[in-house]
Amino acid sequence: MNDPANGNDLRGAAAFQQLHWLASGRIDSVRLTTAYLAAIARQNPRLNAYLALDDSAAAQAAASDARRREGRTIGRLDGLTVAIKDNFDVAGLPTTAGLPGRHHRTAHTDASAVARLRAAGAVILGKTNLDEGALGTFSANPHYGAVQNPLRADYTAGGSSGGSAAAVAAGLCSFALGSDTLGSARIPANHCGVFALKPTHGEISTRGMVRAARRLDCVGILARSIEDLAIVVQVLDAHDPDDPRSRRRRVPLATPDWEPGRLRSAFARDLGAFGVVPEVRAVFDAAVERIGSVFGNRVDLDFSDHDLGRTRRAALLVMESELGVEFADDLADRAHPLSPRLRSMLDFAKAKSAVDYAAADRMLDATVLKARRMFEDIDVLVLPTVAHGAYPLADGERANDADLTAFANLAGCPAVSLPMGTLPDGLPVGLQLVGRPGADLRLLELAAICAATLDAVPVYPVLQRA
Amino acid sequence: MNDPANGNDLRGAAAFQQLHWLASGRIDSVRLTTAYLAAIARQNPRLNAYLALDDSAAAQAAASDARRREGRTIGRLDGLTVAIKDNFDVAGLPTTAGLPGRHHRTAHTDASAVARLRAAGAVILGKTNLDEGALGTFSANPHYGAVQNPLRADYTAGGSSGGSAAAVAAGLCSFALGSDTLGSARIPANHCGVFALKPTHGEISTRGMVRAARRLDCVGILARSIEDLAIVVQVLDAHDPDDPRSRRRRVPLATPDWEPGRLRSAFARDLGAFGVVPEVRAVFDAAVERIGSVFGNRVDLDFSDHDLGRTRRAALLVMESELGVEFADDLADRAHPLSPRLRSMLDFAKAKSAVDYAAADRMLDATVLKARRMFEDIDVLVLPTVAHGAYPLADGERANDADLTAFANLAGCPAVSLPMGTLPDGLPVGLQLVGRPGADLRLLELAAICAATLDAVPVYPVLQRA
Repeated sequence: MNDPANGNDLRGAAAFQQLHWLASGRIDSVRLTTAYLAAIARQNPRLNAYLALDDSAAAQAAASDARRREGRTIGRLDGLTVAIKDNFDVAGLPTTAGLPGRHHRTAHTDASAVARLRAAGAVILGKTNLDEGALGTFSANPHYGAVQNPLRADYTAGGSSGGSAAAVAAGLCSFALGSDTLGSARIPANHCGVFALKPTHGEISTRGMVRAARRLDCVGILARSIEDLAIVVQVLDAHDPDDPRSRRRRVPLATPDWEPGRLRSAFARDLGAFGVVPEVRAVFDAAVERIGSVFGNRVDLDFSDHDLGRTRRAALLVMESELGVEFADDLADRAHPLSPRLRSMLDFAKAKSAVDYAAADRMLDATVLKARRMFEDIDVLVLPTVAHGAYPLADGERANDADLTAFANLAGCPAVSLPMGTLPDGLPVGLQLVGRPGADLRLLELAAICAATLDAVPVYPVLQRA
Repeated sequence: MNDPANGNDLRGAAAFQQLHWLASGRIDSVRLTTAYLAAIARQNPRLNAYLALDDSAAAQAAASDARRREGRTIGRLDGLTVAIKDNFDVAGLPTTAGLPGRHHRTAHTDASAVARLRAAGAVILGKTNLDEGALGTFSANPHYGAVQNPLRADYTAGGSSGGSAAAVAAGLCSFALGSDTLGSARIPANHCGVFALKPTHGEISTRGMVRAARRLDCVGILARSIEDLAIVVQVLDAHDPDDPRSRRRRVPLATPDWEPGRLRSAFARDLGAFGVVPEVRAVFDAAVERIGSVFGNRVDLDFSDHDLGRTRRAALLVMESELGVEFADDLADRAHPLSPRLRSMLDFAKAKSAVDYAAADRMLDATVLKARRMFEDIDVLVLPTVAHGAYPLADGERANDADLTAFANLAGCPAVSLPMGTLPDGLPVGLQLVGRPGADLRLLELAAICAATLDAVPVYPVLQRA
């Protein structure tokens, strides 16, 4: 067990470990929170992971400690710290969504997911940096500056939840909330060497999150272990009658009832079509080889869509159109102009017709059907998370960043990303598991087995000690 | 019991009664089918309810009789006859959707709902007339002529499932399939004095039906009794993995478990806002008075949307945009031009932007939330089906025809329409019951009690004997 007396190990420990320390009295929330705030003060000027801190964090921690002393903790996360991506409302803080003119639009109520974290006792540290309008995979925000990859200076942390992933990787929070519309939680998890869950569509309410594309939007969770994802998803997962896309289940999330080794696992025969670089392919093959028989019966399938390019454009049009509604006021705000890039994307949607939107939206239905057919024959789809690792910010955003993650959003399926190894350049890459809708906890169980086999831990503690 | 030897009573009997006669051997399917085909030959030239007949109907009936003789009937509907609205695929027949240029586009496979009827033994008589592109509430098709209301010459049968409603009302089929996107099954049921069910969204697969607006589209059922609706919905209701909007339930449709008299029933305080004419209001009040304590605790609420006009326009834009995709080839077919009305509606969608579509689609989410909140406090919403009865075709289509029916589509809720009485001009009007999603069978049970109390029967037998 790590010694919580060591500040780095305290900050870099998995949230579930911190919970044990809190419960056993070896640490308290004030100490945990103070350690994070001090580290943020030191490191954030360079990392640019946080856009704003919540002034009440220390008071929240003190309140948690008081509750614990009196034996009346209020929830599963009491005393843990969390970073919130800045496209979720946190009462008392502005929600910039990475846009230039929202500093004075203070949220009056918490987003649904934030409210559930708070009700479970989590201490909210602050808001994290992201792509402008959460529309990107790069987190080089033109108004607030780029998030730095904590593992390598001047490399992208990935996006759009880049600040959340960087904060988790650098040990600047216990865990973090992100969003995931086409891969925005998993892509930065890949680049920063941490764990991410994109749950089944509708499983976690998106009320109070800036909507990018309702049929794709999910709340994402970023953490330093699979166990943390499982703990947090069970706090967040609930039907919300005030979210039109919230999923009403008659039974709770199905608990694991499959037998590893008896799985039917699908592997893509055509990873090259997604631009997966040979170095990622080699790490992937080695990881799958090590995990071995856990995957049970292996099925090789042609995963790539013949219409990959068209599907990508259709998803983007849906997203740009919805963001055109969401950001109508921002577009009109001449005092705080959007970047030319975002403006041109929103203008693109304005120039497309309502019939074009309907055609794009109908096209996306095809992926829903494809996934249904696929998951009749298989239990899990196994892929790299991204076709490559983190790359220099100076290179500019790559167009295929989300090509391996978007499928789960288009199909409404849960997906997990876990670190599977490092590339020759020393940067991490992720293994992605995709399951059928509702299989979130089963997927996490399988991911935990994979992580244990691979000794998957965030790269952070190694880096910090070096 | 009616004497099935009497042709009119045979044709005008409820489907469930015909099933009893078939099962007891008092009639066979050939006799039933022949009676319908003969009546169609006599009456359809005037009514214009059918656009095409299935040449194999007699053979289908003979096959059903052979099965029954050998004691191996294949399903709940074996030997019954059904009319199919011409926006569903029936193998071997063209699907015109009321458009001018589709005569040679013969369907090769049955729509999902048609296939389920056929698999349950139903005899398919033919395809019924409808508004052009199923976009209307009037069934005055510019290419195939107007459907005549069987109860009054030169009056609208309502639409867009006008041919199906007229065929049921005039005793030209055992029951009929319609579609219901904003009220297209319930409106003609109101005007023709028959029963209709619009099920929970996604409960019946819409695969093989011409899509008008995926989030609103439902298969509708038209019949001469509530019992018939209950029989048919249980044949049709199933998850279809090939329909992206098909609803997957973990349990079958909930069976009735409420106690009439202990219901919480909502009544709209502001029917005037929907243009409900005083004569309909009087019939509605009298019917509710007669049904009396069945409705249990009565709640009066303000039902009308402050944005009724905006919601209507938003729903139309979504529908027009999707039809612009569905009918792209028809728009381009210069040999068979669409009517100026339909063309201008599709052009309207083309002139609106993708951002306008996203805004309209998001606006419709508000009704989903409104319904969820409403059904937290109530079990059933009780309304007239339409603000008025049938009116002269010469008057042209009324803009508010669907204003009382659209709510159930926007909210995804099941709704039933049953005849509640006649206006001073002798024409029928319907009582509409709307329930929460999944409550289809409960709603039918309540509707059966209402129908029994009101002695609600189709106007047909009276008319035929007169």
